[in-house]
Amino acid sequence: MPDAVSELAARFRAVRAHSEALAAPLSAEDQQLQAMPDASPTKWHLAHTSWFFEAVVLAPHAPGFRPYDERWARLFNSYYESLGPRHPRPQRGLLSRPSLDEVLAWRRVVDAGVITFIAEADADTRAAAFPLVELGLQHEQQHQELMQTDILAALALNPLAPAAFPGEPPPWPAGVAGWLGFDGGEVEIGHVGAGFAFDNETPRHAVRLQPYEIARQLVTNAEYQAFVDDGGYRRAALWLSDGWAAVQAQGWTGPLYWRDDGSEFTPHGPQPRAPQAPVRHLSFYEAAAYAEWAGARLPTEAEWEHAANSAAPPSQCFGALWQWTRSSYEPYPRYRPWAGAVGEYNGKFMVGQIVLRGSSFATPPGHARASYRNFFPPGARWQFSGLRLARDA
Amino acid sequence: MPDAVSELAARFRAVRAHSEALAAPLSAEDQQLQAMPDASPTKWHLAHTSWFFEAVVLAPHAPGFRPYDERWARLFNSYYESLGPRHPRPQRGLLSRPSLDEVLAWRRVVDAGVITFIAEADADTRAAAFPLVELGLQHEQQHQELMQTDILAALALNPLAPAAFPGEPPPWPAGVAGWLGFDGGEVEIGHVGAGFAFDNETPRHAVRLQPYEIARQLVTNAEYQAFVDDGGYRRAALWLSDGWAAVQAQGWTGPLYWRDDGSEFTPHGPQPRAPQAPVRHLSFYEAAAYAEWAGARLPTEAEWEHAANSAAPPSQCFGALWQWTRSSYEPYPRYRPWAGAVGEYNGKFMVGQIVLRGSSFATPPGHARASYRNFFPPGARWQFSGLRLARDA
Amino acid sequence: MPDAVSELAARFRAVRAHSEALAAPLSAEDQQLQAMPDASPTKWHLAHTSWFFEAVVLAPHAPGFRPYDERWARLFNSYYESLGPRHPRPQRGLLSRPSLDEVLAWRRVVDAGVITFIAEADADTRAAAFPLVELGLQHEQQHQELMQTDILAALALNPLAPAAFPGEPPPWPAGVAGWLGFDGGEVEIGHVGAGFAFDNETPRHAVRLQPYEIARQLVTNAEYQAFVDDGGYRRAALWLSDGWAAVQAQGWTGPLYWRDDGSEFTPHGPQPRAPQAPVRHLSFYEAAAYAEWAGARLPTEAEWEHAANSAAPPSQCFGALWQWTRSSYEPYPRYRPWAGAVGEYNGKFMVGQIVLRGSSFATPPGHARASYRNFFPPGARWQFSGLRLARDA
Amino acid sequence: MPDAVSELAARFRAVRAHSEALAAPLSAEDQQLQAMPDASPTKWHLAHTSWFFEAVVLAPHAPGFRPYDERWARLFNSYYESLGPRHPRPQRGLLSRPSLDEVLAWRRVVDAGVITFIAEADADTRAAAFPLVELGLQHEQQHQELMQTDILAALALNPLAPAAFPGEPPPWPAGVAGWLGFDGGEVEIGHVGAGFAFDNETPRHAVRLQPYEIARQLVTNAEYQAFVDDGGYRRAALWLSDGWAAVQAQGWTGPLYWRDDGSEFTPHGPQPRAPQAPVRHLSFYEAAAYAEWAGARLPTEAEWEHAANSAAPPSQCFGALWQWTRSSYEPYPRYRPWAGAVGEYNGKFMVGQIVLRGSSFATPPGHARASYRNFFPPGARWQFSGLRLARDA
Ligand SMILES: [Fe+3]
Ligand SMILES: [Fe+3]
Ligand SMILES: [Fe+3]
Ligand SMILES: [Fe+3]
Repeated sequence: MPDAVSELAARFRAVRAHSEALAAPLSAEDQQLQAMPDASPTKWHLAHTSWFFEAVVLAPHAPGFRPYDERWARLFNSYYESLGPRHPRPQRGLLSRPSLDEVLAWRRVVDAGVITFIAEADADTRAAAFPLVELGLQHEQQHQELMQTDILAALALNPLAPAAFPGEPPPWPAGVAGWLGFDGGEVEIGHVGAGFAFDNETPRHAVRLQPYEIARQLVTNAEYQAFVDDGGYRRAALWLSDGWAAVQAQGWTGPLYWRDDGSEFTPHGPQPRAPQAPVRHLSFYEAAAYAEWAGARLPTEAEWEHAANSAAPPSQCFGALWQWTRSSYEPYPRYRPWAGAVGEYNGKFMVGQIVLRGSSFATPPGHARASYRNFFPPGARWQFSGLRLARDA
Repeated sequence: MPDAVSELAARFRAVRAHSEALAAPLSAEDQQLQAMPDASPTKWHLAHTSWFFEAVVLAPHAPGFRPYDERWARLFNSYYESLGPRHPRPQRGLLSRPSLDEVLAWRRVVDAGVITFIAEADADTRAAAFPLVELGLQHEQQHQELMQTDILAALALNPLAPAAFPGEPPPWPAGVAGWLGFDGGEVEIGHVGAGFAFDNETPRHAVRLQPYEIARQLVTNAEYQAFVDDGGYRRAALWLSDGWAAVQAQGWTGPLYWRDDGSEFTPHGPQPRAPQAPVRHLSFYEAAAYAEWAGARLPTEAEWEHAANSAAPPSQCFGALWQWTRSSYEPYPRYRPWAGAVGEYNGKFMVGQIVLRGSSFATPPGHARASYRNFFPPGARWQFSGLRLARDA
Repeated sequence: MPDAVSELAARFRAVRAHSEALAAPLSAEDQQLQAMPDASPTKWHLAHTSWFFEAVVLAPHAPGFRPYDERWARLFNSYYESLGPRHPRPQRGLLSRPSLDEVLAWRRVVDAGVITFIAEADADTRAAAFPLVELGLQHEQQHQELMQTDILAALALNPLAPAAFPGEPPPWPAGVAGWLGFDGGEVEIGHVGAGFAFDNETPRHAVRLQPYEIARQLVTNAEYQAFVDDGGYRRAALWLSDGWAAVQAQGWTGPLYWRDDGSEFTPHGPQPRAPQAPVRHLSFYEAAAYAEWAGARLPTEAEWEHAANSAAPPSQCFGALWQWTRSSYEPYPRYRPWAGAVGEYNGKFMVGQIVLRGSSFATPPGHARASYRNFFPPGARWQFSGLRLARDA
Repeated sequence: MPDAVSELAARFRAVRAHSEALAAPLSAEDQQLQAMPDASPTKWHLAHTSWFFEAVVLAPHAPGFRPYDERWARLFNSYYESLGPRHPRPQRGLLSRPSLDEVLAWRRVVDAGVITFIAEADADTRAAAFPLVELGLQHEQQHQELMQTDILAALALNPLAPAAFPGEPPPWPAGVAGWLGFDGGEVEIGHVGAGFAFDNETPRHAVRLQPYEIARQLVTNAEYQAFVDDGGYRRAALWLSDGWAAVQAQGWTGPLYWRDDGSEFTPHGPQPRAPQAPVRHLSFYEAAAYAEWAGARLPTEAEWEHAANSAAPPSQCFGALWQWTRSSYEPYPRYRPWAGAVGEYNGKFMVGQIVLRGSSFATPPGHARASYRNFFPPGARWQFSGLRLARDA
């Protein structure tokens, strides 16, 4: 068996196992919770990622493939119009059947099917299908982070404030204040090279940057508290118009999970807010208002990527929190979606969303890179999202 | 131990056990489903009925009582403003904690507490509290029916159309067509006597009835099908104004659980619609439109009760389906709500609702009586509700 | 010309003129305002009442009748399904065309048409159509009151708080406190005799009343202020469940048009609230909560009618405010809607509404009678609605 | 009087008169219509533009200035948080007072006030305030176009389909098919120089463009009809995800004002759809779906501006329809909002909107320029919006 094959198989096993390890502390009841239409139950994530391998890898490429249960495609297809009708998204939390046990049994069957498929694929099949296996793994890794944000949103609605995961969060090291300067000019951004990247990171292309500075670290709880204390949520002048409307309509007075007693709700239940930790669970609107208050702005995604790729990048680019940029999620010049059903993966969402860069503490290891373009609507707050300031130089 | 005491204890054990027997075929995932704000999860019903005994019987009457978990009152108080704040009703399906196992363990503790309380109560306590124990049992029996309507509503939203309960529904005996005539005049309705009754059934009082006829049986699926086939859902002239608005806004074309293939969704999954079986899962609006189409009307609740109490009552008064009347749910003359927190049980809902009479196949044995006043909003369809015609004589 | 004919013609002229006199102080811009879907523009009322004569009197009975503009039936048909499609109710305020001038010109043509029709009708036509002319006048009188409630609701939304009508409201005479007692027993209610009545007031029938007392006058501003001051709007225990939900959802803290400065908004603009004047612009929910607070209840419609018809009726039965009863709007025993299109006038609204009795200061002279059944949803507050207490004797 | 002064005064008179000329064919009733929260009544536009001169020019700069009616600022302030509270936007159509006559009288007073102010200003005042007078005129010109889009939206809801303006639309000259190629490279966009520009058009800055082609003319009705006929509104694969959701939720089957009889609703009432005329009243979503169907894309705003500024620009850049671009409305590098209240003019809307370029047949003469950035939400259809294709070269 060629190295590439055994490596892929090993990676497949590891990623799939990690999903289940993440879910393991949660009961079947927990795994069925859907906090809101935009979030999904843990069980649904476990099932959807299996469906993805069935629908994208095995169905088109594995000879004689038969789905485990053909009625389930409707339940676990997320948004692929070309792959058939879908159960309404807001009703994912109403699927008590299939049970968690059935979903886990299905995972065993899909696992075996993909492992066999990998092992037995001839060269042509490898060329055609292995990139899709890799995509399935990257996809599952994305859902591993969503499993964490979504269960957090659901448990936050329980007055008992239960912890999703046992133990305590690791402490945040104190960061480094100040700014890093960049000259700008014509620089290149976007993915290039051999590693995996989503279609939306390509093609690599030149952009023109003006001189700028970017903060060495993310904005902290202490800094954000000062903004709150200074009336940040009561001063319309600091906010974009849509942001101010959200503040008023939804009664925002602080980050999503801040609690009146000085704690915040985390995957480990309510925890004290460490002053030096990056503030999290912000919307783009809040990030932009804070920046305005601080006499700064958010970086564009090109500025962020250029800094992150520099010889001396700022700290906390990865592994802390996703970082809102000032960039709308648009196609790069000459962008082409992938061919086939997976063309719906990214391209059709390129309106009404804002780019976040970096990665969070919940992003699976190996899943982050400087060209990665995460995206959410400007009012979304349930992600592990924070902010880094920038300013003109 | 006096007979009354041991009888009450036995009855307590039986009713409590029946709730759990009803839930037993359902998984913990099933028991967490909430189809809509008006319906509740099975687990919530199991917990709420326990909370009721804690809050209404033990807390005020059992010396030294301590709640099992004082944080749970907020979760399982349904609507008693005088008993403290409540978790939002539409979010009952988001309570993965306490788990089903915890709720069942709590039931064990409440069971033991009430049994001990019954056994040890002195005469004064018996006089004060045994009626509340009885109320708790009647309350739990009401929830036993709701457990069935609510899980049906939830599973109906699953494209897999799973059965809540194994087996097949029992066949409906063929009924007896035709009408029964009553002279009317001054008659009495309302509860009187020794047995249990809710406050809303009292006081017994005189009403004036004009001569009327009432159908010997409920309207059947075959009869209702003829209404549908005759354009019943497309002819505004048959409908009350609010009913026609509901037809259009919600796209009704038949009873709630009728399916295009001639089946209907039942607690035993999709089943053929027996032509002679009473049509069920109708709103008041549909019942009234059918009656209009049939050249008849719905009985008033007084007419219904008078007929049911007659020497030769119509068939299917009890044990088939709840029967919409033409009566709004209002206080009887000189009605007084019970004293204390249980005064909120019935009285505060006496606006915007329509009375249903009789009982359904899902009503627990011994829970039905001629003076019973069930009530739901006119657009509600998820109950086991049908209709019986009446007409002026 | 027989007396009946000339009398009808004279009455027709007078009623029609009164509508226009009511509208006269309002500009064309005022007359186009629609405050909410349940309220209509003044101009629409002027047009709709003309359409009613065209559609109900002239079209079926006047030989060779041609509508003034056949496109207008769609615009000014209110809710008669049998008379064709209708412009959406919430968009009545968007009809700048036809202009007010055109609507007034149309009124001239309809006036002439009906007058000619009345004058030339033969005996058969008189028998068939004169009751419909009378209905058209009663209908127009109903709309004369709605013209006043609806323009008030619209102008109340203008921060300039303009007065609909010039001048000042007449002072309220001080009333008479205390109670009037009635023995009850079997009494008759409902219209009988030669005068006009709506179908919903018939047939006259016997009802059984228990001894009761009814207040000599309506609840005053001063009394209601005491309820507010006593936390009436903050004490859930006083409210029906739906009422309490309305208080919270809509933020009610007092009657609809009470203002913080002690004034209330009236057809004559903001005016001081006279302590002895009947409190107005209450919903049924508020009326019921006040009664609960006062240790009383609302009268049933039968109690109200029986008292009003007594030899010594309470004061303010007519000409002050409509009075919420504790009765849902239901068909009387053996009620039959009128034949034809006007069968939609009343019957189809007999669910979800509450009966009000009496009449208000804005009810046209001659339009009130003891059997009159006005009706509105329990949350409606923009009518000239107050409350009179009752209690068991 | 210096030339600059007399020129400004003349221009002021002309622009102000043009607003009233636009409104003149509309009745006071027409001028009060508000079709939806995003659109405003004609009368409101006439008043708001006057308020703007009062609030932005006269109040801060004219000694001894007193507002015409200080209560009106609340009514006619659109969205300037720093200038005080505002009447709710969706209720602008409920302002029958002040009347149209009063608003026109106010315009006379404001006109006189500004003319006097211009004439008497000393050099310092000129320097400080004349740019604001100019802004007020540009602002009023923007509202002149909105007056036309907004009255069209309102009259379109009237089943009588009345024409806003008399006469017939001028014919569209046949266009020129084909593409124009551009090399791209580093180009500059944004306003520079002496003429007026909004803050959002600055600063001029370099961007990097790749070689591209842009269509010589706008997409025509005939071309768009082919898209519709080819199932364009039924094929999810052509649409951005949010666009497809809008198609389904709102039932779109063609451009906003297309009618089933082959006509379209225009300011001159229903008119035949000229095949060679540019298709109009499209959302961004529809423009993007059409481009996808046509195997092309929308131009970026930089591509559009570069082409429009070229020696041989494509036709119909100006005076036909606003043209959706593929660019989100974001701040240019180093963008700074204007100082003071007018800083709210543009900057706070820079999220959730899409840039349109060019100008329409309804844009006032002299108001268009290549750097102009118009912007609307991606679902907006009531503007005079069309599309021009682009593609990679
Ligand atoms: Fe996915
Ligand atoms: Fe209960
Ligand atoms: Fe009417
Ligand atoms: Fe403006």
